[in-house]
Amino acid sequence: MRNVTPDNISEVFAGYFGDDTDPRFKEIMSALARHLHEFTREVSLTHDEWRAALKAMEWAGNITTPERNEFVLLSDVLGLSSLVDMINSPDGATSSSVLGPFHVSDAPPMQIGDDMKRHYPGEVLLVQGRVQDLDGNPVPFSKLDIWQTAPNGLYSSQDPEQDIMSFHGLMTADENGYYGFTTVRPVVYTVPTDGPVGSILNAAGRHPWRPSHLHFIIKADGYRDLVTEVFPDDDPYLDQDTVFGVREDLVMCYEQKPSGTFPEGFAISGKVNEAYLAVNFDFKLVAK
Amino acid sequence: MRNVTPDNISEVFAGYFGDDTDPRFKEIMSALARHLHEFTREVSLTHDEWRAALKAMEWAGNITTPERNEFVLLSDVLGLSSLVDMINSPDGATSSSVLGPFHVSDAPPMQIGDDMKRHYPGEVLLVQGRVQDLDGNPVPFSKLDIWQTAPNGLYSSQDPEQDIMSFHGLMTADENGYYGFTTVRPVVYTVPTDGPVGSILNAAGRHPWRPSHLHFIIKADGYRDLVTEVFPDDDPYLDQDTVFGVREDLVMCYEQKPSGTFPEGFAISGKVNEAYLAVNFDFKLVAK
Repeated sequence: MRNVTPDNISEVFAGYFGDDTDPRFKEIMSALARHLHEFTREVSLTHDEWRAALKAMEWAGNITTPERNEFVLLSDVLGLSSLVDMINSPDGATSSSVLGPFHVSDAPPMQIGDDMKRHYPGEVLLVQGRVQDLDGNPVPFSKLDIWQTAPNGLYSSQDPEQDIMSFHGLMTADENGYYGFTTVRPVVYTVPTDGPVGSILNAAGRHPWRPSHLHFIIKADGYRDLVTEVFPDDDPYLDQDTVFGVREDLVMCYEQKPSGTFPEGFAISGKVNEAYLAVNFDFKLVAK
Repeated sequence: MRNVTPDNISEVFAGYFGDDTDPRFKEIMSALARHLHEFTREVSLTHDEWRAALKAMEWAGNITTPERNEFVLLSDVLGLSSLVDMINSPDGATSSSVLGPFHVSDAPPMQIGDDMKRHYPGEVLLVQGRVQDLDGNPVPFSKLDIWQTAPNGLYSSQDPEQDIMSFHGLMTADENGYYGFTTVRPVVYTVPTDGPVGSILNAAGRHPWRPSHLHFIIKADGYRDLVTEVFPDDDPYLDQDTVFGVREDLVMCYEQKPSGTFPEGFAISGKVNEAYLAVNFDFKLVAK
């Protein structure tokens, strides 16, 4: 188009595609350009603001490494990662939530009843529940990939002082879909703030905190994978998770249990005489 | 917000800003997030597509250097750079167009009548015109920063074989706003295609070509700077500039002039006996 104008630029853009372009690619790119054009017009973006945005992207590129991806973090704090999770979360299933950057692909195996906290100190948290289908029937032998922060707020991959793979474990539920393990309470932590995302949060008057959570990936034959997090109902950041990961059905209660009541059947049974925390969380998977 | 949903996420995002946030920053970020959320919902973006987008951004970060900025190029081929130019272009003035990555800050001075092509071969192009205000009155002594491709399609900064600063020049118009110089016709060229932008263009069935053009930045005391390009009316890519830079008022005619008619008053006057091309282009500046 010889005469591109602010009003026709989205149409001109859409007209540039080749006839044999993949229809889905064309749909996505046309919609992306159109929405970015609408944004630019709506706020009457200036050259200085456009340059500042490009500088932020350049900075994000410079700070990104295989271990730390600032573009994922930008997507997280803009709510895009959570929105993609939500719109791809099937009806009736447990909500999905952000995967985050700390998942490892080779977590150590754990048996039902094992102690994920190993030698780390802190009040015992007993976590158990069932993996079920949408009708509440057990999904037997599903695989649960579980990870969380150590008491210092760091994941093992962030912390050279921790044991290798501490607070990571891969468990197989039993024939009734039951899983159970002990750990300590995960803690709140901040997303990295030394890059452009930190600057954006700062300029927005936003804190970088996430509420504490346990991460789970649950896989079972014949069911869609579930990537999710579960949050305690007394966390101070539940209402303002900086990456928008909290869904109502992922909030659980850590129940305070009196000393002398710790149940049998766990690796640490008989060794726990103090009060402890207990939580029950059932997962619902949707068939493929 | 404890219960973030696909429908309320833009509102939750807007609610996270601190009370003393700069209102313009809040306006821009809220609108950006809202439009990106709308895009994500509209196309029902999948996790695989989201990951592919993040990979493209990571690749753009890896390939970006001080000399080659893939994020600017992405903005260019999405039409964002041109849209920012257009919405900031004052009414009645000559349209602005993309600056591009090949401007240099220390172009060599040229006198009126000088020959920008130096020793490079090719048919002579005589370029002249006036810098005026919106009423057509001359803007005297304005500064014109001019640059273009060499006949091989490369700017001097891209081409170690070229003289330093060839096809770059800084001219001061006379008291009547007149400028004039000789050169050769600029040629069509492609944007870089070895990064993610090249992959996007390829997947879209889009070519990477730009129509040939002369770049100008014009500055004069009391007037807004003008960054623009002018295009010949017979260029094959006028209707499909891959960076959306063409505006109707920037298209000019290269007139073919017969041999023996080259005018006096130019550095090469008396040395041009062949046919040559001539173009007249007046610029209109808006007062500050």
